[in-house]
Amino acid sequence: MKWTKEITLKEVGPRDGLQNEKKWVATEDKIAWIDRLSESGLKSIEVTSFVPPKWIPALSDSYEVATQIKRVKGVTYSALVPNQRGLEKAIEAKIDEVAVFMSASETHNQKNIAKSIDETFPILNEVVQNAIVAGKKTRGYISTVFGCPYEGEIDLEQVIKVSEALLESGVDELSLGDTIGIANPKQVEDVLNVLLKRFPAEKVALHFHNTRGLGLANVVVAIECGITTFDCSTAGIGGCPYAPGASGNVATDDLLYMLERIGIETGVNLEKIIAAAQFIESKLGRPLPSYSLQMNR
Amino acid sequence: MKWTKEITLKEVGPRDGLQNEKKWVATEDKIAWIDRLSESGLKSIEVTSFVPPKWIPALSDSYEVATQIKRVKGVTYSALVPNQRGLEKAIEAKIDEVAVFMSASETHNQKNIAKSIDETFPILNEVVQNAIVAGKKTRGYISTVFGCPYEGEIDLEQVIKVSEALLESGVDELSLGDTIGIANPKQVEDVLNVLLKRFPAEKVALHFHNTRGLGLANVVVAIECGITTFDCSTAGIGGCPYAPGASGNVATDDLLYMLERIGIETGVNLEKIIAAAQFIESKLGRPLPSYSLQMNR
Repeated sequence: MKWTKEITLKEVGPRDGLQNEKKWVATEDKIAWIDRLSESGLKSIEVTSFVPPKWIPALSDSYEVATQIKRVKGVTYSALVPNQRGLEKAIEAKIDEVAVFMSASETHNQKNIAKSIDETFPILNEVVQNAIVAGKKTRGYISTVFGCPYEGEIDLEQVIKVSEALLESGVDELSLGDTIGIANPKQVEDVLNVLLKRFPAEKVALHFHNTRGLGLANVVVAIECGITTFDCSTAGIGGCPYAPGASGNVATDDLLYMLERIGIETGVNLEKIIAAAQFIESKLGRPLPSYSLQMNR
Repeated sequence: MKWTKEITLKEVGPRDGLQNEKKWVATEDKIAWIDRLSESGLKSIEVTSFVPPKWIPALSDSYEVATQIKRVKGVTYSALVPNQRGLEKAIEAKIDEVAVFMSASETHNQKNIAKSIDETFPILNEVVQNAIVAGKKTRGYISTVFGCPYEGEIDLEQVIKVSEALLESGVDELSLGDTIGIANPKQVEDVLNVLLKRFPAEKVALHFHNTRGLGLANVVVAIECGITTFDCSTAGIGGCPYAPGASGNVATDDLLYMLERIGIETGVNLEKIIAAAQFIESKLGRPLPSYSLQMNR
């Protein structure tokens, strides 16, 4: 195996995690949680989403969160942005990085944002261009790369098409999402073998959900393929564990534990991440799925 | 990655799983569970342990279980045996395979069976020899290969010494145990790189616990190293999830799901394993940790 020396962890719990939790978390608790994450050594935190509040009520306080968190030097504060209106709010809230998103699955894209893939490109292109003009970093999420709840397996040509369009629009990085947590290690290898012939590994992050418990196995294979950036959520939050297909991201704490044990540097302090996990668990009021939390109960 | 075509799953839930559960499972329920497992396509099931009942009260009905289960042709029914007395009972109960055990850690071996490693060799040697004479298959468990709760990391020379002694005594297979679920993927690679230079991969099984959620990641790396036999427990039973270091084995259902998705043959039917997992979950009366159970709730 080719173990890398360093890996970048991108915390997405405050956005991807919370948007899938049923319970409302008070704005001050979101802020307190993000402030703890900022002190952990993480270099990137996706703090909220500037989508219309009716889309994701759980994040309807995005402006308050983004403007009231403590900004720690060296940490990139990111937010999800669907369109020009969202970008304006993100700029107003002084977000460092703008993350746009679309799906590799035509049906999922339609269900998610009521547009075809081809209709989505010019909208995202404009957002990315304007974000770059505003001096922001940019990131492009592609969802359902490894499978779609409506279409099943996604043609890799479709993933390539969407990846190329996003990179051409100027995003600094792609994040390939296993939205429903269905990826398996061999599939990760197969997909990356194709994509990394076309795109440099430094431009590609992997975004696994742990729905079927394969998240860390998928990470190991992605590392072997040359990937060095992974999205993750503290405590594995996001989605009720009893709702099929809606489980949380790979847990930051468990991924970090694994990387530490392997001997891969992340710059992130595990004890501080576990403390942040315990904090958000106490606010959500249900046992969260990460193994590190179980070990520390 | 070098994905293999076939993998053998050895179910150890009725022994390693149940021995770590606090709740007594009625003999008839154990039998009904094992009978379900026998119909799943599994080729090997460790059904109980012939240790003195005071050591493991949860398995004090070992003779009843072993003699009352339905024996399905082609399935090897195995039992743990600590000494000559246990062997006699196992033979009386018409067990197909005798599994002996010792630790790679001097302290763990002392705490577990009150003997030094050197004192253990002749005892196990006699058991294995007699088991072979009785026409039984034999298996040698080595615990704490990847770390010991008392000694921490275990010198690989110690693992080699114990492995050699067991193979010389005539065991058909070694099972290398990550007893406290502390192995990481790189360590699995490092250990196997050394051991598989000395012993053929066909003689080595891996026995992971999922204490920190790394079980399946460790399996993937072990497959890459050439291992084709894995121990696992239906539903991931064994140990309270809230007791550090006491979590269950890698779940048969989750491992099987992963292997199916990768495209590796096991001959085991996932639906039947999930049904068996649901059955034992209902008898234990607590949510068991496998992801497949969560998905099917």
